[in-house]
Amino acid sequence: MMNFENVQRIAYLGPAASFSEMAKDLFCAKYEIKACPEPVQTIKQVLEFVEQNPGTLGVLPVENSIEGSVRESLDCLMTSNNPNIKILSEIIMPIHHCLLSRTTEFYSITGVISHPQALAQCQNFLHDEMPRNLNIIEATSTAEAARSLANYNLTYAAIGSEKTAEVYNLNILKENINDDKSNQTRFTLIGDFETEKTGRDRTSLAFSTANKPGALLEILNIFYENHINLTFIASRPSKQGFGEYIFFVNFDGHIRSKKILDTVSKIKEKTIFMRFLGSYEKCRELYTSLH
Amino acid sequence: MMNFENVQRIAYLGPAASFSEMAKDLFCAKYEIKACPEPVQTIKQVLEFVEQNPGTLGVLPVENSIEGSVRESLDCLMTSNNPNIKILSEIIMPIHHCLLSRTTEFYSITGVISHPQALAQCQNFLHDEMPRNLNIIEATSTAEAARSLANYNLTYAAIGSEKTAEVYNLNILKENINDDKSNQTRFTLIGDFETEKTGRDRTSLAFSTANKPGALLEILNIFYENHINLTFIASRPSKQGFGEYIFFVNFDGHIRSKKILDTVSKIKEKTIFMRFLGSYEKCRELYTSLH
Repeated sequence: MMNFENVQRIAYLGPAASFSEMAKDLFCAKYEIKACPEPVQTIKQVLEFVEQNPGTLGVLPVENSIEGSVRESLDCLMTSNNPNIKILSEIIMPIHHCLLSRTTEFYSITGVISHPQALAQCQNFLHDEMPRNLNIIEATSTAEAARSLANYNLTYAAIGSEKTAEVYNLNILKENINDDKSNQTRFTLIGDFETEKTGRDRTSLAFSTANKPGALLEILNIFYENHINLTFIASRPSKQGFGEYIFFVNFDGHIRSKKILDTVSKIKEKTIFMRFLGSYEKCRELYTSLH
Repeated sequence: MMNFENVQRIAYLGPAASFSEMAKDLFCAKYEIKACPEPVQTIKQVLEFVEQNPGTLGVLPVENSIEGSVRESLDCLMTSNNPNIKILSEIIMPIHHCLLSRTTEFYSITGVISHPQALAQCQNFLHDEMPRNLNIIEATSTAEAARSLANYNLTYAAIGSEKTAEVYNLNILKENINDDKSNQTRFTLIGDFETEKTGRDRTSLAFSTANKPGALLEILNIFYENHINLTFIASRPSKQGFGEYIFFVNFDGHIRSKKILDTVSKIKEKTIFMRFLGSYEKCRELYTSLH
């Protein structure tokens, strides 16, 4: 078990009752972290907080099972000024959206406010069960949507978590309205700490290859020859123009094992850029509550 | 040259002065298309329009040099009910964002409205040159953001193109505020038509592999052995849970050449899902104006 008992502060994407806050609570429960919560407004600010305050922690959403990788998080990790900031742990959290309102009258609803990702994840529900001429308003987060309901008339509803209803004193008109019931988000804990091998570890790496035929193939071959299974791959533009990409990969194993260290060294030789993003215990189970 | 002279309608992401409308104008100029413009509200509606109206065309943004693939477009192409709808052509358009407002006072701005991708493309500008407590409001498009300024007080600005300023009668407070000055977007023309080989062609494919070690490697190897260079790769979640991905690839060549047809057939054998997305003339130059 990692020891974060001296950590004073932990940053995450706010406001109150955001999914990131729920993930922060789960990390704090798992590692008995008593740090002061530091809600910030953007994913980039999470990274900046951890960079500027040595010894603190941050929570970053990295992948959603429906929407894919969270690009801003990958870009932040890749371009951090402090290469010692690494991924320390991960959790996978189920995402259940609810229709929330100040009224209790489901059939009176004429408009819905939420984050575009949440609206996208509930589009069949909105199409099939809400009026045809529904007003759709986008918000920066599901929590912000719930908070903003106070500015609208009673016929507006928000899409957000059960916890949002509690924090913003709203009624839950419908539960679990996301179209895909297996909707999950993977969150990581980041900071400038070292992790121990647990035997159930995952390593994350970012790299870019020369822009020549077979370059990516050569890297994937190194994993294959060393019997290392990739569990995640995403490409991001290198921002040097079309056709040049940075790849993010996750694979099983810890950098403190010889096999992984040798593999990572070989990859470093074959790439024009490589960044080790951390080795950490992988999430084995769904965390659905703190208890 | 493809013959689209009988095409009656062309759909794209509106409203007036959107980047998609600019791309539509470029396609219309290139192929002498005299079709009636059909602005729609979402990327999904572009595809639905083309599906429901045989013989029409649509314009889809597919990749930005900073933000990467346009996920909604890739997901639409992959899940279309009509496999005959294919990519017919592409153009690459430079994207210059401006800060637009009803006021001329840059230092009075307290809030900014735009599409999430435009906000992401200007994040350093917003971070470094705007107030710390800036209100950020997301809109469905940059043009919609400009249009909606009328509903906000004078201290709000929108991020959008120079053309947007003209159409919505706004002042340009700052020009070219995108962080990366080489910001470009690739747009495709889609429809149920056949394309001819031009000798400067590109083919797009979507596939998913079995979830086993080396599966992606095996596919990349087919390209490599056939001396076919991949120019684009992106992964999207298969929406079947974490760890299963659908890959999008672009590579040089036309499906009407034996080498490409053989390669695609081999890939079909080795994948659990494959969809041919089109062979089309690749964009050789930047189109910056219609003339």
